[in-house]
Amino acid sequence: MEKKPIPEVVVARLPVYIQKLNQLMREAQQFVSSQEMADYLGVTSAQIRKDLSFFGGFGKKGKGYDVINLLETLRSILNLDQIWEVVLVGVGNLGQALLSYQGFSRQGFEIVMAFDNDPKVVGQTIAGIKVRDVTEMQNFTCPRKIPIAILTVPAANAQEMADKLIQCGVKAILNYAPVTLKVPEGIKLANIDPVLSLQTFTYYLL
Amino acid sequence: MEKKPIPEVVVARLPVYIQKLNQLMREAQQFVSSQEMADYLGVTSAQIRKDLSFFGGFGKKGKGYDVINLLETLRSILNLDQIWEVVLVGVGNLGQALLSYQGFSRQGFEIVMAFDNDPKVVGQTIAGIKVRDVTEMQNFTCPRKIPIAILTVPAANAQEMADKLIQCGVKAILNYAPVTLKVPEGIKLANIDPVLSLQTFTYYLL
Repeated sequence: MEKKPIPEVVVARLPVYIQKLNQLMREAQQFVSSQEMADYLGVTSAQIRKDLSFFGGFGKKGKGYDVINLLETLRSILNLDQIWEVVLVGVGNLGQALLSYQGFSRQGFEIVMAFDNDPKVVGQTIAGIKVRDVTEMQNFTCPRKIPIAILTVPAANAQEMADKLIQCGVKAILNYAPVTLKVPEGIKLANIDPVLSLQTFTYYLL
Repeated sequence: MEKKPIPEVVVARLPVYIQKLNQLMREAQQFVSSQEMADYLGVTSAQIRKDLSFFGGFGKKGKGYDVINLLETLRSILNLDQIWEVVLVGVGNLGQALLSYQGFSRQGFEIVMAFDNDPKVVGQTIAGIKVRDVTEMQNFTCPRKIPIAILTVPAANAQEMADKLIQCGVKAILNYAPVTLKVPEGIKLANIDPVLSLQTFTYYLL
């Protein structure tokens, strides 16, 4: 079946829908109204109905959406009904925290390799993953065609690491280094930098 | 001087401008063109000129913007020419990584208190901060009027912690728990959840 392209802003909201639906499922709630979803996401219920109409009509008059059915559909749309392999580059404090974070595997993301250049961590096994020397990164990742990388290296090393990973077939990078990376068209990039969030707050705090 | 309100999307871009200007300053570059800024942010140079026109005309024909002057102006607009105190709640792996992260203090954010409920970390001193029992959180934070909180607690505890912090005068919360918090109007909230970013990637990867 040919997929109808979904607008980028809608795609960006779908993981938040899934987050809410996962919570409702844990609480054994069977149906959810567009209003309840809207309250959770901070948008209008009309927006919710419009978003979900991209995937055909799910809602039942007076009952709302079937939680499990909607969850499975959204996960399928985002290609989350498979395991996604992830390579982690940079095993400092933050990298170690991410290696130990169980939220990834619960949602189908598996960190399968980790690299660093610090002799103090190279060779160690953290949360079941052996940390390898970063000089071996391409040898290990190129043959395996790992699609996703998480970068938790210092800003000065991030672009070089990104370039090498992309050469090896990485298609999406989650970047924690406080620097904006340049990536070729078609490569997905998202940045996580808590300082940027804090700096947006302070405009409103005085 | 009365501040003219800046649109939220522009405010959200200013920290990225500052990131780039910090980098240029470290590299001792004196002027920067709107095109160079545009390339960094992935927007048009017309957008850059429009954004910066909110703060008066800085650009010099043929030379561009004075890096240090623009950096100081933007930092002042975002109220970054002062130290901002931050309270951290949740000192697991991620909380410990954030306590040790030097990027906060370099940009004027200082984690001054940390709380957890785990007897294994309560009482420990991490990166100079003594971890206190979370039952004492309000006793310690209320009198000090700390404006910003970082939440790195499990999803199930996040809303309760947010409510208590807001009661004590916290005005902005950076939330790492994988749950959407409800906060009163006027309280700023930003969420960091790597899983949401990864789930947005996968739509594009098949």
